Amino acid sequence: MRECALILANGLFDSVFAKTTHGLLRGPSRYTILGVIDPNHAGQDAGRILDGQHRDIPVFHSIAEALRLTSVRPTHCVVGVATVGGALPDALRTELLAAASAGLTLVNGLHYLLSDDPEISEQATAGIIDLRKPRRASELTFWTGEILSVRSPRVAVLGMDCAIGKRTTAMLLRTALRAQGISAEMIYTGQTGWLQGLRHGFIFDSTLNDFVSGELERAILACASEMNPDVILLEGQSGLRNPAGPAGSEFICSARAAGVILQHAPTRSHFEDFEYLACPLPPLSEEIELIRLLGSQVWAISLFTRGLDDTQSSQIAEELEACHGLPVVRPLEDGVGRLAATVREKLFS
Amino acid sequence: MRECALILANGLFDSVFAKTTHGLLRGPSRYTILGVIDPNHAGQDAGRILDGQHRDIPVFHSIAEALRLTSVRPTHCVVGVATVGGALPDALRTELLAAASAGLTLVNGLHYLLSDDPEISEQATAGIIDLRKPRRASELTFWTGEILSVRSPRVAVLGMDCAIGKRTTAMLLRTALRAQGISAEMIYTGQTGWLQGLRHGFIFDSTLNDFVSGELERAILACASEMNPDVILLEGQSGLRNPAGPAGSEFICSARAAGVILQHAPTRSHFEDFEYLACPLPPLSEEIELIRLLGSQVWAISLFTRGLDDTQSSQIAEELEACHGLPVVRPLEDGVGRLAATVREKLFS
Repeated sequence: MRECALILANGLFDSVFAKTTHGLLRGPSRYTILGVIDPNHAGQDAGRILDGQHRDIPVFHSIAEALRLTSVRPTHCVVGVATVGGALPDALRTELLAAASAGLTLVNGLHYLLSDDPEISEQATAGIIDLRKPRRASELTFWTGEILSVRSPRVAVLGMDCAIGKRTTAMLLRTALRAQGISAEMIYTGQTGWLQGLRHGFIFDSTLNDFVSGELERAILACASEMNPDVILLEGQSGLRNPAGPAGSEFICSARAAGVILQHAPTRSHFEDFEYLACPLPPLSEEIELIRLLGSQVWAISLFTRGLDDTQSSQIAEELEACHGLPVVRPLEDGVGRLAATVREKLFS
Repeated sequence: MRECALILANGLFDSVFAKTTHGLLRGPSRYTILGVIDPNHAGQDAGRILDGQHRDIPVFHSIAEALRLTSVRPTHCVVGVATVGGALPDALRTELLAAASAGLTLVNGLHYLLSDDPEISEQATAGIIDLRKPRRASELTFWTGEILSVRSPRVAVLGMDCAIGKRTTAMLLRTALRAQGISAEMIYTGQTGWLQGLRHGFIFDSTLNDFVSGELERAILACASEMNPDVILLEGQSGLRNPAGPAGSEFICSARAAGVILQHAPTRSHFEDFEYLACPLPPLSEEIELIRLLGSQVWAISLFTRGLDDTQSSQIAEELEACHGLPVVRPLEDGVGRLAATVREKLFS
């Protein structure tokens, strides 16, 4: 029997903080999703709030209400929100305790480890999966250079910033490539990728810094040797110049990505969560040049269009395409057929 | 009474793997150094092997021999070598056990934690200091942006690669600036900086990736608020395009370094430890441009001259200076007076 889960999105469902929830609703998901918990949207359909598409997944006020109203018994309770620095908000704690005492396994992607919380871990008799629990140096792999002999080419989905749609685009691109007869695999680098059932990857941001490149290489080597795919997509993290934690060069310098799909939010002026700082997002043209100097190439730009209507985002896409001479796509509006075609052309023509 | 230490450099003293040993011999050091252990050079003076300068610090064959021959009793035994991935070689284990059972406190900067080794930790009744013991997420700080209000300007000493003299140049520059009446402080980012007695910093490579920028910011904020220095020097790590672990953008994007001193090894063709890979060191001119795009500026180039004679390195310095239009210095041959003058001119003229 497939495992069934409730997702906690307490009060944050309609924000970028709930990107784990959004990813699981869009699918795929390791668990069958029975419902989302968020008092702000209780009684509505979760899909409608996400993107207007009914998905027959209700939003509940609380774990207690969900347990009362769902006909199938959930087995897991997934924390579906991220928080700055990964702490545990009080509203979440209350619901986690309710889920734990109802016998659900807790699945948590915050830096805050539930297994270290005496109250929660005592209640969670069915178990805790702390996805971001750091592994020790002795369990981690240093980079070796073996990646240079991997024949499956890598394509990285990087972004100008956090929470800008990198994983979503990569997941959609995997599906589109497969539909075109290309065997595409994807390396996850965040907890959501694992929750979506991806087999190869690691949690980038809770890895000891010295081993990030080695763990990335290890995941790619395992994927290549088990699946021998035509292409391996890499889920990027953060942005090359994100002051809160610049990242991305690992995908180019260590994983030797042949090309990059660059995720961009045209109306975002500042780095996510730092709108109050005198620290604006740098221009797209500089990012393209930076990626070239690091040793790869931007093959296409993919837009995060939240807050824009269809006409606006379509016009911006056209303008950017003319300006940069690269395909510019809107994955959620138009799909990623054009991205898949670009990847095919670059790699196989 | 000052603490006295023996340094273990077993068989590696004359290599870049012993850069911790080299740093402690050059000074400053948290401990008075009584001797170095390396059977390959036993009986010689450690300073002579380092750079030809007698320092009255003997090299011993073993801990046992050192304990027999030193008149002052050592209190600490410091692991003075780094190893790829940070494992513990057998030769070191034997000497560490000898030091532990003689009642010395073990000080270790490897990823391999001595406190996790049952045999060693049982013997080490005087204690173990594992410098690279990772801290938990709950003990770490996320980046906040408070750095933007720090008035002491930052200057980063970055490098084209690992083991290329970044820390040495930064330490010398601190001394030179102070001699010119500039209050200069330095943030350490590796275990050697701590061993040299620096007060502010953290161990970059054993920090969970998500918190590297925050810990760097925290160290700078603490230094600025306690010392209010004219300038804060930042010890860089790795290189921007080192495939085994690219790093450096944190110092520019997160720590907002106003300028960069770029450490360069003119005759090194490949990244350290990866000479066998088809992965050459990129050209200096690209690195300078990369640093500009990341948001800072190379102010001067500093040479790692190992393997070159005086005439060769002097000629290379001249050529590079003409080519890049930047001051190019040889810190160990000529001192860093010119670097100090450049920093003064850029910041205070």
